[in-house]
Amino acid sequence: MLHLWEILGTLVFCVSGAIAAREKEMDWFGMFVVGLITGTGGGLLRSVLIGDVPPRMLTDPLPFLLALGAVVIALLGAAWWRKIRRVVSTVDALGLGLFTVTGIRIAESKGLPWWSCLALGVITATFGGLLRDVLRNDVPLVLRKEIYATASLIGGLAMLGMTHLRWPDGAVLVTTTAIIVTIRLLAIRYAIHQSQDG
Amino acid sequence: MLHLWEILGTLVFCVSGAIAAREKEMDWFGMFVVGLITGTGGGLLRSVLIGDVPPRMLTDPLPFLLALGAVVIALLGAAWWRKIRRVVSTVDALGLGLFTVTGIRIAESKGLPWWSCLALGVITATFGGLLRDVLRNDVPLVLRKEIYATASLIGGLAMLGMTHLRWPDGAVLVTTTAIIVTIRLLAIRYAIHQSQDG
Amino acid sequence: MLHLWEILGTLVFCVSGAIAAREKEMDWFGMFVVGLITGTGGGLLRSVLIGDVPPRMLTDPLPFLLALGAVVIALLGAAWWRKIRRVVSTVDALGLGLFTVTGIRIAESKGLPWWSCLALGVITATFGGLLRDVLRNDVPLVLRKEIYATASLIGGLAMLGMTHLRWPDGAVLVTTTAIIVTIRLLAIRYAIHQSQDG
Repeated sequence: MLHLWEILGTLVFCVSGAIAAREKEMDWFGMFVVGLITGTGGGLLRSVLIGDVPPRMLTDPLPFLLALGAVVIALLGAAWWRKIRRVVSTVDALGLGLFTVTGIRIAESKGLPWWSCLALGVITATFGGLLRDVLRNDVPLVLRKEIYATASLIGGLAMLGMTHLRWPDGAVLVTTTAIIVTIRLLAIRYAIHQSQDG
Repeated sequence: MLHLWEILGTLVFCVSGAIAAREKEMDWFGMFVVGLITGTGGGLLRSVLIGDVPPRMLTDPLPFLLALGAVVIALLGAAWWRKIRRVVSTVDALGLGLFTVTGIRIAESKGLPWWSCLALGVITATFGGLLRDVLRNDVPLVLRKEIYATASLIGGLAMLGMTHLRWPDGAVLVTTTAIIVTIRLLAIRYAIHQSQDG
Repeated sequence: MLHLWEILGTLVFCVSGAIAAREKEMDWFGMFVVGLITGTGGGLLRSVLIGDVPPRMLTDPLPFLLALGAVVIALLGAAWWRKIRRVVSTVDALGLGLFTVTGIRIAESKGLPWWSCLALGVITATFGGLLRDVLRNDVPLVLRKEIYATASLIGGLAMLGMTHLRWPDGAVLVTTTAIIVTIRLLAIRYAIHQSQDG
């Protein structure tokens, strides 16, 4: 069940990358590469930083298949994708939450200090999008729109607190993800209202 | 003999980087760095991803010398370099082919699955140019002009097939490189005709 | 005493990154990330290239605290920071020198050849600023303004020579740093005069 959500989160990240690539008139290879890096770049950077190589992306074919699917969606279903924007935002927020949790847990298993685990959680969740924007030749969105990384950061801090208080693992995971999804979706709704007022 | 062609391929990559750097008004250090990364960045990324560190670039001085030579060519011989454009394109295509072959063979020696070897072959052949364009602050050319990476990808697929059929190693290498060079040079010729029509 | 100067050098690098991020209208997270990467990116890349993972940045909280301090300075004290420009330039040059020395010494301890140690020294000293400019979506300044990297390179070469001649370690360190600081500050003064003439 958890695995299913993580796959959906990765797919949404990949599609956001592939569509962003298409907007810059990249070809299918560009869409594939940018999609793949958006979906896996954060985890990849974490793996390289903690010496966890080769990264999972090179031993599990799933991300490649998801990036291929993302190219198809970006080419054929971009209009449909925009129509289900609310669903996409929710799954994206879910991906943000699950990636933060995964990143922190893997860093903890390497015995790193808490602030380092927190940093690796945020990196796992947000650096795929950062690399997407570097490849698109834009200033990374995540460095300009605070509420994306902040949601990951607050959720990660809460997770470290709950772990410290010896909450059961499932409760920590669900609560952390819920916090991140809530903050992220509230931020989107608030931003939409702002632009309607403007 | 093979080694000689690989050196020539690296040199052509380095010069393309150094000239691209000069076009952005970089100084000698910028030309050197961008040239070096264009020639070695793909292999470097492969090394880091599979834990093959320090990369060859830090133990074999040849790439540094080639990048220095590339700076000299970019400063003094850029006009002459453009005149021998056909030779340059051919050697560049040869580099594309040889780098793909090398990347796949090294990935295979690490016991990675076939699709992962293919990915590392394409990364070895194309990510030097990608990093060149990131440093030049451009959208990477390889993500916009399909036939470059596609040539590497088709050749790599053929190579995996031939290896699976137990062709002798020399035949695999020569055939793969020939496929990639042919596709790449046909793509260039076709593109030239297009622009003459336009 | 040495440690204090290295901390000051890192802080100046971080503040330069945070201010550069603010100029691109990044938020606090962007200022923090760009500041941190400017201060630690060179050492991080060196660590990844020589397999020295996890990098010190993930086990020693000091760089994180310095980057947080840099965000505060960029938000509240940017005007004051510009007023003490001479002090900042001097500490920045000191950072350039100390980072070069550190990078070379660590590379030597891994048994790498001299030209490779020199490259890793220059990378340690200059690639933080390079990554800062990539994240800001600019052509990296260090690739366009020669005297920054050149100072690191000349000092590094001198250091290798002194080590070869078996100078005592303290003398090597002080002389190398002094050479780099002098070249860098002379370059700044010369550039100022140029722009006054222009």
